[in-house]
Amino acid sequence: MKTVSTLKEIRALVDRWHRNGKTVGLVPTMGALHEGHLHLVRAARQACDRVVVSLFVNPTQFSAGEDFAKYPRDLKKDTRLVAAEKADVIFAPTAEEMYPAGFDTSVTVGPALTQTMCGLSRPNHFQGVATVVMKLLNLMRPQQAFFGQKDYQQTLVVKRIAADLNTGCDIVVLPTVREADGLAKSSRNAYLSEEERRLAPSVYQALKLADGILQVGERNPKELLDAVRKRLKTESKIEIEYVAAKNAETLEDLLILSGRVLVAVAVKLGSTRLIDNIVVDVPTGS
Amino acid sequence: MKTVSTLKEIRALVDRWHRNGKTVGLVPTMGALHEGHLHLVRAARQACDRVVVSLFVNPTQFSAGEDFAKYPRDLKKDTRLVAAEKADVIFAPTAEEMYPAGFDTSVTVGPALTQTMCGLSRPNHFQGVATVVMKLLNLMRPQQAFFGQKDYQQTLVVKRIAADLNTGCDIVVLPTVREADGLAKSSRNAYLSEEERRLAPSVYQALKLADGILQVGERNPKELLDAVRKRLKTESKIEIEYVAAKNAETLEDLLILSGRVLVAVAVKLGSTRLIDNIVVDVPTGS
Repeated sequence: MKTVSTLKEIRALVDRWHRNGKTVGLVPTMGALHEGHLHLVRAARQACDRVVVSLFVNPTQFSAGEDFAKYPRDLKKDTRLVAAEKADVIFAPTAEEMYPAGFDTSVTVGPALTQTMCGLSRPNHFQGVATVVMKLLNLMRPQQAFFGQKDYQQTLVVKRIAADLNTGCDIVVLPTVREADGLAKSSRNAYLSEEERRLAPSVYQALKLADGILQVGERNPKELLDAVRKRLKTESKIEIEYVAAKNAETLEDLLILSGRVLVAVAVKLGSTRLIDNIVVDVPTGS
Repeated sequence: MKTVSTLKEIRALVDRWHRNGKTVGLVPTMGALHEGHLHLVRAARQACDRVVVSLFVNPTQFSAGEDFAKYPRDLKKDTRLVAAEKADVIFAPTAEEMYPAGFDTSVTVGPALTQTMCGLSRPNHFQGVATVVMKLLNLMRPQQAFFGQKDYQQTLVVKRIAADLNTGCDIVVLPTVREADGLAKSSRNAYLSEEERRLAPSVYQALKLADGILQVGERNPKELLDAVRKRLKTESKIEIEYVAAKNAETLEDLLILSGRVLVAVAVKLGSTRLIDNIVVDVPTGS
């Protein structure tokens, strides 16, 4: 397996594959790979002739005061993990390679998908994501790109730009991979203290509670959200950023819980921000 | 020559060319073709194996109160003109095809290139241009795309997004084509009354005056701009929108006229807005 760090090299490599009629799958990551990422690499390996895993801690999707500097980086370990999944190449550019002097373009998705949930506390986050994903898609023109459901709002933003800007790339979203106790796998889990790690599964337990409440027929969003908040508040160390129940395609608020319903949570546990979500198919009009 | 109106058809057609190793040249236009456009088509024909001319009056680059509704449209005549230049295909989509329900993405270039000159009176213009050009480049992935220098600020915006978003497309800018009396060819010239048409060459004459002033050694931007304004004001029917002398790469204001200097003018003649520019290489430090 090759590791490539310049735009020129990755473009030359992937262009050759395209000319030879190979399908290309891209797994965009910020590195610090865990089982969730590897699950995406495996899916790409199954679906595509050639697989690129990008490792890039994208500065523009972090807001001031966030964890850009301390975000975990371990290219050596990541390389070993990706090689074990038989990807064809790692693309690991520097920030200077991706954003050279004079860089001055951004890709933006409208407020319906971006000025809600995570977009409220992370003002430039989705613009940073949309811009870097557009760059990666243009560089490699993959037929498919693979993302995890844990970052649900991100998957909607990426689907939007991929379709709206006519990339021709199919955005594949795979289910969240979890620890045995339900905690969603995340590179940021490494920040948790022992005690915080013990409390962290409460987030998923609150989402499972929401699922149960929907299964027994609750259709009032306020009742559902109150129950989820109440469950989270049983742990005083958990600080709720948001609890939301939304139309899973449009992120619109719901008057009645029906159709594909996203239930999403963001919390702070100490200084670590955790997000998680479930999507529940709720029978309409029942 | 083929005319294609759906994204699906144009993508299939161009993908086949790419698979067969053909180079693709794109000439993006809003139709109402004149000799300036045809000059671009000829250059594309010389440089590339396959040539696509897009005809699309892009609604998102017009501001409220502008001439979107009355912008000249004549697909039949345009088709004849493009066929005579031996282009391979016309891509003429509808607005619904380009911006289907739910479309919600925009491409933006920063204020240095967009919040000056034409960007001041046309607030969303360059975002509309950047977004539609990004769509066209992604759809067709041309090796080269051809633009006219008359829309100088637009060419800088397009170069910026093509580079920043890693399209791999070379943006080729060709000199402004002019009428015998110097008036820059423009689809909007059709709006001019007989009297306005007679006065319109004053714009280029004022730019030629600027060139002359630079050639004899003037290095003070204020002196230059005053002389251009004064020349334009000899025609009382010409209403000046801006006269600018800028660094031709960055559009920065200049304290001293040196290097590649853009001199650009926008005026209203009756209800018709005309723009024109020249780029002069001014010896540094002379």
